Amino acid sequence: MNAPFSGRTGPSQPNRIALAQAQAVARGQAPIPLNDSNPTRHGLTLDSLPGVYRAEPRGPIELRLELARFLGQRGTPVDPDDLYLLSSTSQAYSWLMKLLCDAGEAILEPRPGYPLIESIARLECVQALPYQLNYDGSWTIDLAGVRTALDGPDGARIRAIVLINPNNPTGSYLHPQEREALIGLARSRGLAIIADEVFFDYQLDPLPGRRRLAGEEGALTFALDGLSKMLAAPQAKLGWIQVSGPAEQVAQAKARLDLIADDYLPMSQLISQAAPGLLAQASAQSERVRDRCVGNLRYLGQALDGRPISLLRAEGGWNVLLRFPAVIDETELVERLIEGYGYSGQPGYFFDMPSNGYLALSLLPEPQDFRAGLEAIISAVDDLLG
Amino acid sequence: MNAPFSGRTGPSQPNRIALAQAQAVARGQAPIPLNDSNPTRHGLTLDSLPGVYRAEPRGPIELRLELARFLGQRGTPVDPDDLYLLSSTSQAYSWLMKLLCDAGEAILEPRPGYPLIESIARLECVQALPYQLNYDGSWTIDLAGVRTALDGPDGARIRAIVLINPNNPTGSYLHPQEREALIGLARSRGLAIIADEVFFDYQLDPLPGRRRLAGEEGALTFALDGLSKMLAAPQAKLGWIQVSGPAEQVAQAKARLDLIADDYLPMSQLISQAAPGLLAQASAQSERVRDRCVGNLRYLGQALDGRPISLLRAEGGWNVLLRFPAVIDETELVERLIEGYGYSGQPGYFFDMPSNGYLALSLLPEPQDFRAGLEAIISAVDDLLG
Ligand SMILES: Cc1ncc(COP(=O)(O)O)c(C=O)c1O
Ligand SMILES: Cc1ncc(COP(=O)(O)O)c(C=O)c1O
Repeated sequence: MNAPFSGRTGPSQPNRIALAQAQAVARGQAPIPLNDSNPTRHGLTLDSLPGVYRAEPRGPIELRLELARFLGQRGTPVDPDDLYLLSSTSQAYSWLMKLLCDAGEAILEPRPGYPLIESIARLECVQALPYQLNYDGSWTIDLAGVRTALDGPDGARIRAIVLINPNNPTGSYLHPQEREALIGLARSRGLAIIADEVFFDYQLDPLPGRRRLAGEEGALTFALDGLSKMLAAPQAKLGWIQVSGPAEQVAQAKARLDLIADDYLPMSQLISQAAPGLLAQASAQSERVRDRCVGNLRYLGQALDGRPISLLRAEGGWNVLLRFPAVIDETELVERLIEGYGYSGQPGYFFDMPSNGYLALSLLPEPQDFRAGLEAIISAVDDLLG
Repeated sequence: MNAPFSGRTGPSQPNRIALAQAQAVARGQAPIPLNDSNPTRHGLTLDSLPGVYRAEPRGPIELRLELARFLGQRGTPVDPDDLYLLSSTSQAYSWLMKLLCDAGEAILEPRPGYPLIESIARLECVQALPYQLNYDGSWTIDLAGVRTALDGPDGARIRAIVLINPNNPTGSYLHPQEREALIGLARSRGLAIIADEVFFDYQLDPLPGRRRLAGEEGALTFALDGLSKMLAAPQAKLGWIQVSGPAEQVAQAKARLDLIADDYLPMSQLISQAAPGLLAQASAQSERVRDRCVGNLRYLGQALDGRPISLLRAEGGWNVLLRFPAVIDETELVERLIEGYGYSGQPGYFFDMPSNGYLALSLLPEPQDFRAGLEAIISAVDDLLG
């Protein structure tokens, strides 16, 4: 079982100076760096940003302790040293692609899915290969397709499987059998799991058995989460990676991820100062947002009753997919909405739905706005059914 | 003259929906997105982060206006639409390598120089090829070497020239003749200039004619700066790119850089709220730090008088290079400092100095600490000359 690391981070060669330094530290000494260019260690700190700045690749330990405690309340203890703080899951995807993939290597990612992953992969010289989700009353992952991809001509280039739990815009959680199969595949083939769980707390109509991948021990797992969705605060720019899996692989992954993090050091003191206060609001805020989504979803179910539009089962998240008669072209429907109703939208092909006839709908709007938007969709569909 | 852009950002294909949307906007309408997943637009904003978040790739326009006004005080007006806000120059280097270089393409960067550039390049699947600076009482760029590199076997893969103004740790500003030659080369060969000017305000012993590259019109130029050095505030995590050059190239560069920025959207509201207050302290703070550096440099000149250690002329920045007799091995000197004096340091080879005999020294420490460090160096050199 190979560890799936790229050559982008060199093996850090310990030189003689680093060695002498390590020995001094082992003797209880702390040599003062003559080349230190951190002004906050020399009495030059700005009054409005007090304290001494320590450049920690994983982010300030105080905040990682706080976050580990917060995440541990979900049930399983979290080690602050398994956490990497950064500004967004987008940045996390970038770092993980650098960690795992050399140029031209690939990740597997779900379709329908979050289009940003393919775009970020391209920026990282990585190929995003699809695996399918299929709908038949609920969504399931095409596991046979995953195996075919891994055994196929591109299989040897695949370094990681992206699992979005729940996925956007399908709203589907990873089901227990899928989890078992995918963790087994990752373990046996030396692949990493990238688990995007930003929407996990927003259950709508879940099937039984959903569980976070964060903390999974069966395969090298990088779980992504952050305040964007948990606190409905995309403007805060605080996300994190939680690393877990077989101990040896985790240690190697962290040594290399430290090198990547050290080149960027993205955590601002302005964010880390505010973060504990923000985390304290998490459960109230995610309940507020979940209530909004659940309320709109309930209304939606009633409003569609007896109409030629149906709702695909959404287990969790902030978005749902509507299906309308396939005689209507989905692009035409959105053009109609723009030109006749003052609304715009994203049809299914934006998310690589396998066929025509879908529209994504956000559950976030205030109830009266949600209803008005839905009226517009219903009318536009009626227009086109003529 | 080719524009030096990579294939990492696809040409954004305007689809029918985007077209209909643009036409609606042109008619003065603003279609409401049915798939909007920005909770701050739906009455779900956190009390502690008030306001509606607008995802602007270049960063909030209010802050860009403020920053443009601030930068404009240096003499030349700055257009806020030429600014990209992000968390550090490290992030800026990454974005620009993505913008300019496909996997396996290259940038030219100065040696001796800032080692992080090579490390970031590797993370971006880009090769960092060196050009030399030579010292003969002051530092000059080996322009013939730059031309040889561009004409050599790797020349066709080079997409940008990195200029650090002043460079670290040589402290050398770009001189007028060098500037003219390099801008001319970049223009005629369709290369971009990446100008890292984070230390520009910290003149120590400058030669005449230093001038910022920010705003340069002669070639496509990306100037990097930020609060890390300007405010001596590495913990704030606010940096920026200023784009300038021939109008057509600038327009193309910005269209593509917008796509990159849009995938990451790094600016936190917590930073943008604090930034105007921080900028207001810039001139007082950089004067304070410059005074510290100038004071230590003056002491250094006196203290080295009559000793076997000399100081390389440092025109600007926070660091200087000391040269000691080459009979001493620079690695041994640092080992001696660690083992015998409780100091550590970086010898010249860390920065790719062409020969043995150098040590980098920070000018930031408080005067008594600076003096104590210098004493240690002097003693350690004496020991080894023994
Ligand atoms: C699946 C998924 N992951 C991540 C994100 C965004 O997270 P961040 O703002 O932390 O980049 C989104 C946003 O829509 C998403 O749909
Ligand atoms: C030449 C140079 N550029 C940039 C930086 C760091 O800037 P930032 O903190 O914005 O990444 C340094 C820090 O030492 C530097 O020496």
